[in-house]
Amino acid sequence: MDKYYLKVAMRNAEKSRGKCSPNPFVGATIVKDGKIVGEGNTQPYGQDHAEIVALKEAKEQAQDATLYVTMEPCCHYGKTPPCTDAIIKAGIKRVVVGILDPNPDVSGKGVQTLKDAGIEVSVGYIEEEIQEQLEYYLCCIDKKRPFVIWKTALTLDGRYAASDGSSKWISNSSSRKFVHRIRSQVDVVLAGVNSVNMDDAMLNARGFKNINQPLRVVLDPNLQINMQSALVKSAKDFPTLIMYHSADHETMMRLKDMGVELQQVEGKDDTLNLDAVLEAIYQRNLNSILLETGNKLSESFWQHNLIDKCYIFYGNKILGGDKCSLRNIDRGGINKAVELSKIRFRRLGDNVMVVGYPQY
Amino acid sequence: MDKYYLKVAMRNAEKSRGKCSPNPFVGATIVKDGKIVGEGNTQPYGQDHAEIVALKEAKEQAQDATLYVTMEPCCHYGKTPPCTDAIIKAGIKRVVVGILDPNPDVSGKGVQTLKDAGIEVSVGYIEEEIQEQLEYYLCCIDKKRPFVIWKTALTLDGRYAASDGSSKWISNSSSRKFVHRIRSQVDVVLAGVNSVNMDDAMLNARGFKNINQPLRVVLDPNLQINMQSALVKSAKDFPTLIMYHSADHETMMRLKDMGVELQQVEGKDDTLNLDAVLEAIYQRNLNSILLETGNKLSESFWQHNLIDKCYIFYGNKILGGDKCSLRNIDRGGINKAVELSKIRFRRLGDNVMVVGYPQY
Repeated sequence: MDKYYLKVAMRNAEKSRGKCSPNPFVGATIVKDGKIVGEGNTQPYGQDHAEIVALKEAKEQAQDATLYVTMEPCCHYGKTPPCTDAIIKAGIKRVVVGILDPNPDVSGKGVQTLKDAGIEVSVGYIEEEIQEQLEYYLCCIDKKRPFVIWKTALTLDGRYAASDGSSKWISNSSSRKFVHRIRSQVDVVLAGVNSVNMDDAMLNARGFKNINQPLRVVLDPNLQINMQSALVKSAKDFPTLIMYHSADHETMMRLKDMGVELQQVEGKDDTLNLDAVLEAIYQRNLNSILLETGNKLSESFWQHNLIDKCYIFYGNKILGGDKCSLRNIDRGGINKAVELSKIRFRRLGDNVMVVGYPQY
Repeated sequence: MDKYYLKVAMRNAEKSRGKCSPNPFVGATIVKDGKIVGEGNTQPYGQDHAEIVALKEAKEQAQDATLYVTMEPCCHYGKTPPCTDAIIKAGIKRVVVGILDPNPDVSGKGVQTLKDAGIEVSVGYIEEEIQEQLEYYLCCIDKKRPFVIWKTALTLDGRYAASDGSSKWISNSSSRKFVHRIRSQVDVVLAGVNSVNMDDAMLNARGFKNINQPLRVVLDPNLQINMQSALVKSAKDFPTLIMYHSADHETMMRLKDMGVELQQVEGKDDTLNLDAVLEAIYQRNLNSILLETGNKLSESFWQHNLIDKCYIFYGNKILGGDKCSLRNIDRGGINKAVELSKIRFRRLGDNVMVVGYPQY
């Protein structure tokens, strides 16, 4: 039953996906005498962690109950007091932890604190699933940069556009709806200035109620964004950050007036240093980035082995022509190809989506 | 129940797929008092049609029974006497026909013959499924050329090979096994001479017991095939036809000695006229062709809108580089892309197969 209640906790956690960054979205379930008496998920940054929400629901029923939590409870003062204190005080008898928190401030210390208080603690259940659920957070701890997701829509023969440049729409409306859901679950949607200027892309999340909006980040080395673009014009409604390396004062002033935030990062000519871009996003405590980049910028991320996860949507079309995806990354031989681990497929009407994790 | 028994007949028909060309693989079921008393499928060319097999099994139980047959019974003397005669003689009371036979020698006349003999005839059940089952045969009647199937294995980014030319293996063993099944179900497997010389492809069907072998056809305009290739060396074991337009006498003699059949067709320089190629195969009463062509020859078939059905196998690989599938067919704009009708997906381990019918 431990696995079952942890899966309930995972489901609770899912409710906070994209809503509590930079905190990981954790879920908790409190069970007493075979009955769930409290459930919780991480609240927005600065508010209650999942364990606290569940304890508040359980009230005095927490006494001698078992707490299931997807990730190790914190034992340090962050924006909120340590969860371990609250768990001990509530009289919890046993704690089942999915995975340890790799954050060096916690990392086993949370479990030790509970054990020292005489609580029985079990660690390590459905770890692979929980690690996948918390992949954004775990990447930040591990690689000290945000988790990078590449999304592309290709024809069946692997084109990202027709030879005349047209690409609306390669994928169908179900695929596009799916992309909007992904946008609502990440902290950042990132594109290059060319995509914004050519496609007039909004890069926000649409089509769902009460949808979470990502920060829109545009890489625009020399501030050449179209002032009349839908993105710039909507900057007061949807958070918008443009990263550049050199720009004239007047353009900067105009963009700021329109509500755009600007950040200078290292770069040269018409490119920005991608490590610097990721570092800047990481410093903002943003965990995850969805790349809505055109082919050229996508190639740069691939060339630097920066893609952590791919979503490829295949539209029902054969186009031919030379707008071939990722032409300029060249792995040389079949034995040097990048494979995707945990590859999954999903049919979306007459489209198919492929999801996986590149293994470099 | 009519649909049910016709589906049983369709299942029977499937047993003859690839085994009775140029006859269509038809299935029959005879039902009396709610019990199946006879079943049949088309036997190899020159032998019994499905109806006759079923009647022979049913014997005297055919009296007053219902015959279900996927396609209209023949009413003319071909290699065998008319099935309609046998049906009438057996005392069948009712005949349920899936689809009419578009062959002008039959085409409604079979049904009329039965009706004239006082048999109740119903026509037109699960037509779409039966039409798909008999697509090879129906294409031959309709277009007066064999049904052309294009198969390709692509990386997730749409490459047919790495930049160093390596392509073994883009797809996994499940995908390759699936291809061998398709090979066993078509009359012809066709490749260009370059594929044979470079990949030393055998083009036969392997990996299943009692497997049907297609005719191997190689397009080799100037007879440049490697005499030491596995294909040439196995020509006495597996039927092999090379089509060419010009050749020297000695090469021809050597190939013939090795068991290769040669056929001259119209062509120029290093190409053959594809219409002439298809016509030559059609004249041999061969219904279906699986293209195992390299990218260049595949492009030619696509350019002439000659592909009737596609099987695309996506291997779990990202390669980059410029070996992009179908680069030289260029549909120009997204609104001119070729779409596939009846598109289907099938997961094969970490590969996904896409099947559909190009709509030009």
